[in-house]
Amino acid sequence: MSDATAAERELGTAFLPRFDAQGLLIAIAVDSQTREILMVAYMDAEALAKTRETGLAHFHSRSRGKLWLKGETSGHFLRVEEIRVDCDQDALELRVKPEGPACHTGARSCFYRRIDGEGLARIED
Amino acid sequence: MSDATAAERELGTAFLPRFDAQGLLIAIAVDSQTREILMVAYMDAEALAKTRETGLAHFHSRSRGKLWLKGETSGHFLRVEEIRVDCDQDALELRVKPEGPACHTGARSCFYRRIDGEGLARIED
Repeated sequence: MSDATAAERELGTAFLPRFDAQGLLIAIAVDSQTREILMVAYMDAEALAKTRETGLAHFHSRSRGKLWLKGETSGHFLRVEEIRVDCDQDALELRVKPEGPACHTGARSCFYRRIDGEGLARIED
Repeated sequence: MSDATAAERELGTAFLPRFDAQGLLIAIAVDSQTREILMVAYMDAEALAKTRETGLAHFHSRSRGKLWLKGETSGHFLRVEEIRVDCDQDALELRVKPEGPACHTGARSCFYRRIDGEGLARIED
């Protein structure tokens, strides 16, 4: 952890990403055109550095315990156009141009269901 | 943890929220009108139940270790109009009507800065 004060993190112009005890922060990928939330995953410092270096979204796979280039097997890369950071710098919003469906199920977005009563309903839009 | 299979979680119509080892899942609040991401926080089962019961976004404060009704001190509640869930059900998208600025800094959204070169720039929009 950096020793930046809360005020510096919240009000300043220094990028001081705040990784948690596992070395991770939340990254939300949003379609820059439609504003639809496509997926949510975690980044460690390596994934963040690779994302900034290549312009392609990289995450940290907690299940596999390693760097994960989104689209490395499917070809459905997320081209990062802008990165926003929240007040306390422990979450990022990636504005992206998706090259195909973002979800591994083939859906455009991972958020393809809404709570409907006690169950879920598929979103048709 | 439930013993639901991955396929049931991803393709079914049962709401089977997947809380992590700390009992938490990610909740992203989005303005239902503008589609702007307002804030990101965590929910435990109690916060999720209270949110569904009251229609007001509740989260679990990790720093305070307890239930947190968003707006309890500021009056800036988030009225939840719809809850979406992602493929593996460990993240929620709350479509909300915000009653005031969502960020404790007074900003409309917590994501008020973008990465600009090596630093951050305030977003004016």
